[in-house]
Parts: sequence; structure tokens; C-alpha cells
Amino acid sequence: MLFYAPDIEDTLQLPPDEAQHALKVLRLQKGAALEITDGRGTLYNAALQDTRTGAVAILSSTKCKEERHITLAIAPTKNRERMEWLVEKATEIGISEIALLDTAHSERHHYDVSRLNRVAIAALKQSHKAYLPRIQKLTSFADFISGDHEGCLYIAHVRDDCGHRQEAVAAIQAADKDTAVVLIGPEGDFSRDEVEAAIARGYAPVSLGNQVLRTETAALVAIVLLNLIPKNE
Amino acid sequence: MLFYAPDIEDTLQLPPDEAQHALKVLRLQKGAALEITDGRGTLYNAALQDTRTGAVAILSSTKCKEERHITLAIAPTKNRERMEWLVEKATEIGISEIALLDTAHSERHHYDVSRLNRVAIAALKQSHKAYLPRIQKLTSFADFISGDHEGCLYIAHVRDDCGHRQEAVAAIQAADKDTAVVLIGPEGDFSRDEVEAAIARGYAPVSLGNQVLRTETAALVAIVLLNLIPKNE
Repeated sequence: MLFYAPDIEDTLQLPPDEAQHALKVLRLQKGAALEITDGRGTLYNAALQDTRTGAVAILSSTKCKEERHITLAIAPTKNRERMEWLVEKATEIGISEIALLDTAHSERHHYDVSRLNRVAIAALKQSHKAYLPRIQKLTSFADFISGDHEGCLYIAHVRDDCGHRQEAVAAIQAADKDTAVVLIGPEGDFSRDEVEAAIARGYAPVSLGNQVLRTETAALVAIVLLNLIPKNE
Repeated sequence: MLFYAPDIEDTLQLPPDEAQHALKVLRLQKGAALEITDGRGTLYNAALQDTRTGAVAILSSTKCKEERHITLAIAPTKNRERMEWLVEKATEIGISEIALLDTAHSERHHYDVSRLNRVAIAALKQSHKAYLPRIQKLTSFADFISGDHEGCLYIAHVRDDCGHRQEAVAAIQAADKDTAVVLIGPEGDFSRDEVEAAIARGYAPVSLGNQVLRTETAALVAIVLLNLIPKNE
């Protein structure tokens, strides 16, 4: 059982909802061993000090290296469950930032990210990871691509031509950086103008194949590839 | 809109539920152009002939090559939604067969696959694919690994040691066949006996990393990698 306490270093205390879970649900006793993460890469071994307040003593800490820094920028699906599912899976597999995009063909121009944050925290704890993805509020496509993004930049879009199934893989293999941003469009795909604007800002167009993948499936495929494809030496 | 008609070559007729959809929901008229797949690799261009019976005329057909033949053998999750979600995603990304395993640590010893079949058909149509995965009924782990399976055989299991995140990728890259079987265990992982029995039958143990992935997430990661990792020349 991993607890999430973003301010643990300063407070030496579980946040209220985590304290509630530890004390009322799990009924942990004074001195119980806890594992805690701040969601920014540090895992703590701690001991419960006060079963009334959730105060803890930190016994040791380990800083986990973030192997690759991956940002997913995606036009949210109409169906909220599909987005929540994606956030869960992306957190398990490994994602640093999730940005929501308002695009020309988007079906959603507003999105309350608070529930996505809760899903990410649950997945962080379940999969025992040290990094909680930062989920950014919906921004316009133009604002996002004008932002200051480092590393390898990709825009995934649907194309009619076949046979390019492994093109994205080749692009990732050839990449010389461990930081990447990938843009995933809505069900109706990015507009031609959006693809051109992204290319002008340095985004490499990649196809995830000639298959018609749902938005959230395309995002997941991209995250697996960006996390796991080894780089060319 | 793609229609699924497994016996189209023989019957020249949409099956009842597909005919219902074409005629009552979409209200297609005589002569309307239809795309139909048999789920075994052939896509047909057809024209609606009879709006009462759903009879069609086939105008042309294309046989799609199955690039890789991937079999996923998995201990079904306790939660049915997670299995249905996995079948949907696996069908979109590409999977040939899905076998359900009854393992030492399984939480389910029975599973009605009829709903999984319906999910696969819906995903086939949605993602416009020509191959419907064959979903096999639950069998014991011992029976499955004793079966006659060709190609590259993998058993994915959780290990305590870190740093093997890309081991599975390397194994897939080195594979010299386009046919693969991957075994994915239950939340409690395969037993040590099961792992050893699989190894004795020629299954290569692979780790999908030191992360704790949920069963369905591990399966999905394996499917993406088996589909998309390019082979060494």
C-alpha cells in the first residue's frame, strides 16, 4: 500500500484523505510501516507516529530516476470514461504530463480535470509509482504548440496511405533525447491547418498505422512506444 | 460503416442483426454501397439488393495480409469491464486469438465469452479491421501450454529485480517468426511452478518491467510491442 502525500517533506503528515484511509479503513497502529510518495520521484519509508493526526516519521527515502519525460497532449474524448481509463493506463505505464487540447474538430471545449487527477492518484498508488503525471487544463491547440516544449516533438495523425505502420517506431528509435511530446487528435483527426502549424513549430508528423484507432487507443499506443522502444546506439 | 458477415461468400446475405442495423437503423436503400468483412481477412465491396431480406451483391473483394499472428493467453480479471475493455483495445490494435486461462492464482474459474465476442465484433467494425480475434473458452494453464503452439512463445511475469524494462523488447526484436504467443498472469502473478512448466515447454520468460502493471495493462503493453516492434534484419 503506497500513500500519496505531495508535501510530506514539509508537513511530516499524511493529507486528510490519506490519513482517513490509513487510520479509519486500514486501522493502522502507531509504529506501522508506511510507504509514501510525493509524486515527484521520491519514495519514503515512514512509520506512523500519531493515530489521531496521521503524523509520520520518515525513516529513509529513495529518489527514483525519471527515465523518459513524456508529455501527452490530447483532444479529450466525448466519453469521460474513455479519458479516465486512458489516464489510469498512462499513469501505470509511465507519463509525465497530460495536456488537454481544444482542436478544430474537438467535441469538448471544456473539461474539468479534477476527476482525472483523482484517477491518476489512484493509479499511482495502485501501480506503486513515484511520479504523478501533471494534468494541465484544456488549452487551445494554437496556444499549446506555441508553448516552450523541449525534446522530440510528434504529431500523430491519420493518413490514407498504408504501410507506414512502423514509421512512428523508426522515428522514436532515431530520437536522441529522452524528452518527448506527442499530440493526439480528436476522433475527427487534426485539421490540415493544425498539422501544418505543428510541423512549422518543429513537430514531426507520425502515423500510428493505417488502422483507425480510437483517440484513447492511439494515445496509449504512443505512450507504450515512447516508454519502451530502445534508442539506436 | 463496416458490416460483419462471417458467411457472406456462401449466403450473399447480411446476418439478421447486421441486416436489422442496415435496414431499420441506417435505413439503407436498394443499391446502397456496403463494406463487409468476413472477419477472416477479406473485405468486400457490396451493394444492397433486397431491403426486405438483406441480400447483397458482391462487387469486389480484397484479401488483407495478417502481418503477425499474435495469441494472447490471459487469466481473466475479476472485473468483467476490464476484460471487455482489453478485448476492445486488443482488437483495434491487432490480435489473432485470445485464450482465457485458469491459473493457480486465478480469481475466475468460469467465464462466459459470448459478451467478449460481441465486444470484439463491435471493435472490428469500429476500427475497420478485417480480422476478428478468435476468443477461446477458459482452459487450464496446464492444458494450454501442452497445446500445439507455434512461433515465439513468451510468459510475462513479475520479477523483483529492476532494470529489465526493455528485456521484452529485445526478445521481440530478436524473434525470427511472425507468430507469437504471450501468456499473461492474474493479479497475483503466475505461480513459480507455472513459470517453470512454461519454460520447460519452450516459453521464454519476459518481464514487462519492474512496474506493477494491472493484468489488462500488461496484456495491452505486450500486444503493442508484439505488433509494432520492428524485427532485427
